[in-house]
Order: sequence, then structure tokens, then C-alpha cells
Amino acid sequence: MRKEEDFSEWYAAVIDKAELRDKRYPIKGMDVWLPYGWSIMKRVEKAWREEFDATGHREVNFPLLIPETEFQKETEHVKGFEADVYWVTHGGRNPLDVRLVLRPTSETAMYPMFALWVRSHADLPLKVYQIVSTFRYETKMTRAFLRVREIHFFESHTAHATYEHAEQQIQEDLQINERLMRSFCLPYLVSKRPEWDKFPGAHFSLGADTLLPTGRALQVATFHHYKDNFARVYGVTYEDADGTRKYVHQTTDGMSERLIGGIIAIHGDEKGLVLPPEIAPVQVVIVPILEKGRQDEIHNAARELLELLKPHLRVHLDDRDLRPGEKFYHWEAKGVPIRVELGPRDLAKKEAVVVRRDTGEKRSLPAASLIHQLKSLLELIQVDMFSRAEKVLKEGIVAIASVDDARDGINKMGWCGRQECGLAVTERTGMSVLGTPYYPEPASGKCAVCGEPAKDVLYAAKAY
Amino acid sequence: MRKEEDFSEWYAAVIDKAELRDKRYPIKGMDVWLPYGWSIMKRVEKAWREEFDATGHREVNFPLLIPETEFQKETEHVKGFEADVYWVTHGGRNPLDVRLVLRPTSETAMYPMFALWVRSHADLPLKVYQIVSTFRYETKMTRAFLRVREIHFFESHTAHATYEHAEQQIQEDLQINERLMRSFCLPYLVSKRPEWDKFPGAHFSLGADTLLPTGRALQVATFHHYKDNFARVYGVTYEDADGTRKYVHQTTDGMSERLIGGIIAIHGDEKGLVLPPEIAPVQVVIVPILEKGRQDEIHNAARELLELLKPHLRVHLDDRDLRPGEKFYHWEAKGVPIRVELGPRDLAKKEAVVVRRDTGEKRSLPAASLIHQLKSLLELIQVDMFSRAEKVLKEGIVAIASVDDARDGINKMGWCGRQECGLAVTERTGMSVLGTPYYPEPASGKCAVCGEPAKDVLYAAKAY
Repeated sequence: MRKEEDFSEWYAAVIDKAELRDKRYPIKGMDVWLPYGWSIMKRVEKAWREEFDATGHREVNFPLLIPETEFQKETEHVKGFEADVYWVTHGGRNPLDVRLVLRPTSETAMYPMFALWVRSHADLPLKVYQIVSTFRYETKMTRAFLRVREIHFFESHTAHATYEHAEQQIQEDLQINERLMRSFCLPYLVSKRPEWDKFPGAHFSLGADTLLPTGRALQVATFHHYKDNFARVYGVTYEDADGTRKYVHQTTDGMSERLIGGIIAIHGDEKGLVLPPEIAPVQVVIVPILEKGRQDEIHNAARELLELLKPHLRVHLDDRDLRPGEKFYHWEAKGVPIRVELGPRDLAKKEAVVVRRDTGEKRSLPAASLIHQLKSLLELIQVDMFSRAEKVLKEGIVAIASVDDARDGINKMGWCGRQECGLAVTERTGMSVLGTPYYPEPASGKCAVCGEPAKDVLYAAKAY
Repeated sequence: MRKEEDFSEWYAAVIDKAELRDKRYPIKGMDVWLPYGWSIMKRVEKAWREEFDATGHREVNFPLLIPETEFQKETEHVKGFEADVYWVTHGGRNPLDVRLVLRPTSETAMYPMFALWVRSHADLPLKVYQIVSTFRYETKMTRAFLRVREIHFFESHTAHATYEHAEQQIQEDLQINERLMRSFCLPYLVSKRPEWDKFPGAHFSLGADTLLPTGRALQVATFHHYKDNFARVYGVTYEDADGTRKYVHQTTDGMSERLIGGIIAIHGDEKGLVLPPEIAPVQVVIVPILEKGRQDEIHNAARELLELLKPHLRVHLDDRDLRPGEKFYHWEAKGVPIRVELGPRDLAKKEAVVVRRDTGEKRSLPAASLIHQLKSLLELIQVDMFSRAEKVLKEGIVAIASVDDARDGINKMGWCGRQECGLAVTERTGMSVLGTPYYPEPASGKCAVCGEPAKDVLYAAKAY
């Protein structure tokens, strides 16, 4: 199956072959995470936790269910979600007095509690996060990791004394995001979403988008500045140093298993997955190359190597009774960054054959310095994978003078700044407007729609 | 608040003071886990994962929702749960074609997939687990950690070729349980639940019960042998070596945050929580005792001690601008096993004052050997806490000759083996029948109900 020829089929096949999830669960868009897929997700979660713990966020866990009465308080927010939520209407055989929503996201669950937790300026900033399932009654076509109905979601929520403090939080989030995306080898572009497509209830929304080989953009992280929009609805106020009561300003940062979908789509190849070393559950797999009469010797050497490497990296010894070729195939499909082959000739020369999953490059390395060399190689693979993907993203951003020239990739165009021209982009191309560059770029030339002088730059792409 | 006088009030107050959860969330029985409570839960999860990973179980993650059509296949199972489940009936504004259940437990979600995964005897045993929320529409009074509507649940599920292999799995589960309960400092009694009170769909059920200071039993773990009951319903079969198709035999092992409720109830005291060192998020807290003019010197020494201890144990330095007494109170409420006080006199003598949370014992230890001594002390506290609780459990098991003598604690009585006498125990005492001893004990004397010769031993207690 060639990735270039039929991406959808390739994507599904790669996921099946790597045994990430089982799609035969009897609800559309809700798959079963198989052990290997789940172990990748847990490494993604670990990366999230480390970053947000290190920046003073504290992990909490809110109930899944939200009473309709709380959910409906923020009207814009509700309007944005009410077609997409699952409703719990019965407990046992009895109808519930108040219907309950499976959280589509947690603003309406959390902020009534924030109103109780925040009393004075000394309680601010309040920075929490949780890693939970959220639910959307997705009516579009679902696709593993990219568009699902049970979402494995990371969400941080913060409250601050002022608008500016909240804006600084967004800066911190973007720095965290930069580090995380390097871990995941996912290059991205940060856009300020257009007014007409921001998150329901947000003052402004930023999106980090990456580009898949299909030429479509994939949103991998979002950042919302809520100003005091939710604070006014849920009464989240604090007593300032001067004794006056003020509304807090809030932000959120959200990510999901879409990250895994992005990694699969961008880095995978005909052989299967290619995982970034930082999130690979197995970084190095050892495959003994047996020779008649010397099985024990080679097995022992492989086990010794396993014990030697174990304290330093995530290593697995494949000592199943299979031919080496079958093992190569198996671990390539699973995207393990490095394969170490150990055969009689290698043993004799006190060497090991080391094969990179990302490039296929193969070389013999002296056994004596293997730990050190493997660690360096993992770092190199990490950097190389990001750089290659970054190059592809950059090449995929195409400047167009007229909206009629829009093509696959992320289209960059001049924009007069008027909403009607922004909406026209979508009408005439079927593309989503990703927004304006968050890190400002000088506008020049003309609006790609109306031809009047451009005041800003606009990004548009087909999107997942 | 004295634990002995009003346990319920004490229990709620201790939880509030330690900031484990916030009960003001607007759904009964669904509380918000606060950061400290959640960090304890994460340590419990870590202990679960380590045990089940080490015994060849693989972690998976199934969808939350189960279609009514799958849920209703095992009729006994459904009857046991249908009054207790939450029903999702609508997606957006539209009624769903097939109603969905929020999983109360995952047999009916998992076993249709097991039917796809298991093909031949080579696929067995299949051993998986997941850590997820499960839901019960609890109509009884809810209570933090002990009886909740969103349960933080651990569940392992296995499939085996034969009845005996499944029984061996139960043995492994009991060994795992023994190690876990020692980590949690929870002594327990394993009973085979009576026929009339086994898990819906089970061939037999075992329960591990501990005893709370109220004289009531608390089930902290359950183990079910399903025989081929579910396999027949969901068609989980394998091709045996002889070419015939056979049904698998299945087991599960389940635990929840009740463990935390048990730890709070059994080990807590007037000052608050007392946490077992193995699951305490903070094992040692350092409190500097400042003296005018020497603040910097003491702060520096405290920070040095922090850095020294960090690689060896979970340590926290409380350098807030508060009086030492307030800090003592704070960390005692949170149950931190050891407090280290560092003041000018200690510094002069190259010592530190070390205080045990469980006994209050206080002594000066030489700074030079502090790491070693603290590690030993944590191990000692762990053992002491278990032993003390075990003594209380043993004393709480009371032998009675007649059911009319039943009292607080776990009542141990002779039983003729007839169901009507078992049911009479509950009718006449209001107690639950925990079952017969799993590790057989010789029966002697007479049935505590009918007076005929006893064939077995029966345990009964008021239960949570």
C-alpha cells in the first residue's frame, strides 16, 4: 500500500498492522485501544504531565457528567455544542429530574467550582489540568485518532487577575507547546482563528495546525483566551488588593490523540509506523540472528545486551521462535526507532548491526560503546524526524495571489480584513480559514478575494 | 472531632481538611478530585499497573459506552445492573437508534471483542486490564470514596483454555492482592460470596473485606470466576490442539478508590490522614524552624537537605511564610508519614528532628546518616501500620454461637450450609453475609441459625 496513492487506505492499514486499536467495536467512532496503541498514548500523557507539572499546573479530575442546568448557562458555548453532545436522560428505569451531558469539554463543569475556589487575589493564578475522555456526537465521517467520538483529551484551565496575565499564560502555553511538538516531531503553524470560527465563548482562539501528506491541515492544539466571558456567567470573582471584587480572566489549552494521528500520517511509510524516539514505547529492539549450533551463545549475548541497555533506554529483546525477517517486519510496522541485530559474525567482531527505522540506514557499531552510540542515535533520529517534517510543512505553505489559485497545502494570501472576504474563501474553495498568523507577518499586495489592499495575511486549507 | 464518637462526621471532616475532594459539585455522589486526592489516586494506580504489568497483563482501553444490544445479551448480568445504569438516549437533538449504557463494569463491552481476538489455544491465556471510570446510578446514600456514582475502577479480565487455568488465575490475583494490600496497609479477609449474592453472571465470586472502625465490613477487592458463562453468550471460543472448538473460561479482578476510603477510615486520627509510605505522594516534609538573624542559614540548610533527599524519597520542603505550628498542622492533616524539623540547635548539633506521623514519636537523628535512617523508618512505618491494622481486624472477628448474638465486627458462625439459614442471618440481623472462608477453616459446633450440625463457617457483618 503506497501512502501517496491512497492515503486513507494506507493510514487505516498502517494502524491495523501496528495493532494500535481495534475498529470492530460496535459503536462508530469509538475504537478499542490495543496494548501497543495505549502504551503510545500513555507516553504522550506522560509528556503532557511533565510539562504542565513543571509549569505549576496541578492535576485534578472532574466528574464526566454535567447537569443541563450548568451546561446551559453560557449561551454561546451551548449553541456551539448542543448538536454534538450525548445526553444521559435515565438512571436505571427512571427519567432523571435534570438531564446530564457527557462533557464535550469541561468549562461548564469546572467554572462553577472555580467560583467557589477563587476568593482573593492570593488565590490567583489558578492553574489546573486534567486528562480525561470527552465526547462528541460526531455526525461527519469518523477516522481513527483524527475524528473520534470518545476523545482522549488533555485540557488545562487557568484563572488570572487580569487580561494581561491571561495573555502571558497563553505565551507559556505556546512555549510548552513548542517543547511538546518537538517531542512528537510535529512541526506546526500557529494561527489566530477568525472571529467567525473561534471557540464558542472565547475572546480569541489560537490553533496549532500541522500539515498531513494529503495536503490537509490538522489542528493538533488549541489555546483560548476567555477574557472574563465565562467568569461573568459563573460568577468567578476575586477580591483585589484594594478591596474591590473583580472578574477573573481565563484561558485553556487543549490537545488530544490527534497528535498520534499526526505522527502516523506524517512519519509513517510503506513499512508502517515511524515513531519519534521520545514517545516510542520501545526505542530499541534486539533481534538475535541465530546460527545452527551457536543458538545458546547468541541468545546469551542478546540477553546480556538487554540487561546492559535496560537502565539507559526502553529496550525489548525479541526472542520468539520466528525467522529474523518476520521480526524485522513486525517491529518496523510498530515504528521502533532502532533495531539491533546480533549474529555470530557480529559477536566475533565484537560489534552489533544497528538499523535506523526512519532512514533504513544500517551500520556496524563496536559493542564497547553501544550504549553511548545508541543514545546519541536516538537523539539524532528525534532531531532529523522533526527537521524533515518541518521542511515538508514549509514547502506546503503556498503563497497565492487570488483565492481561485488555492490548492492542496496551506494557502497563504493577502486579506483586506473584512469578514465577507474571509467567508468567501471558504465558499469558493471549500477550505477552512485557519486564521491570521499569530506571529505577525507583514501584509503586502492585495486581498486574494476582493483585490483591495491587503491589511493582513490569511491562511486557508482543507482541514480534518 | 473524635473518630470514636461520630465516625461519619469525622470521616467527612478529615477528607475536607486534607483537601482530597470537593463535594460541592452539583451531582450527588460525583465529587471533584482535588490535586492532593488525585495524587494519592495516581499512586494507587501506579501500584496496580506495576503488579499487573509484572504478571503479564496488558493495559487496554475500551470505550465508555456500551450498546444496549450487547449489554442485554447476558440476562443474569443485565438483571443485576439494569436498575443501576445511566442511559444515554440522545445524540445532539436526536434520539439514538440504539440506546447506550455508561459502563457499570466492562464484561459486555470487552467480551464481544474477546470473541474476535481469541482464535486458537495459542492466543490463551488472554490477560488484559484497564483503569477507567465506571458508573452506577446509586440510590443509597453516597459517601466519599466508599459509595460513589462515578467509580475510579481497576479491572483485569482474563480468558483461559480450561476451568483449572482460570482458577490458577484467581490464585495469581490473590497473590497480587496480598502484595497490594500490604502497600496500602489494608488487612483483609477473603470470603467466597454466597450463591445468592455472587456477581451477576459469575460461577463464583470472592471478596476481600476489611473492617472499618465502625464495625462494618468494606469490600476492597473482588475476584470472579466466570467459568464459560460469558463465553457461551458472546461466543468466545478457541480451537484446541486436537482441532475441536471450545469455550474459554474467564476471570476478573476489580478494585476502586474504596481502597483510599479504607486507608482514611482505618489509619486516620484526630489530626487527619495517616498515609502508608508506599502510597504517600509526599513521604517526608521538611519544616525549617527559623530564628531571627539566622533565617538564611537555616533556609539554605533546608534546601540542601531537600536536594540530598530528593533522589531517594518523595520529599517536600515547606518554605512558606507561616509559623512552624501551622505547617505541622497542615502536613499532619495530609498524612505525610515523616516530618523533619530543622532549626538552629539541630544545625549546631548536626542533627535533625524526625517525627513519625503514625505514632507521633519524635527523635533527633544525626544528619550524616539521615538518608539511610529515613528510608529505614519509612519501611518500619509501612510494616507497623499494617500490623496494627491487622491486629484490629483479628480482634474484630468475633465467634458467635447463635445468630442472635451478632454484634459489630465480622461475625463468624457455624452454618449448616442451607441457603434458608444463610438468608435468615441477613433477615434477623440486617447484616450482609460475606460468605464462607476462602482458605477453608474446620467447621465445628452447630449452625448459628437452625442448631443443626455445622458443615461450614459463615462470616456476616454490616457492610458498606
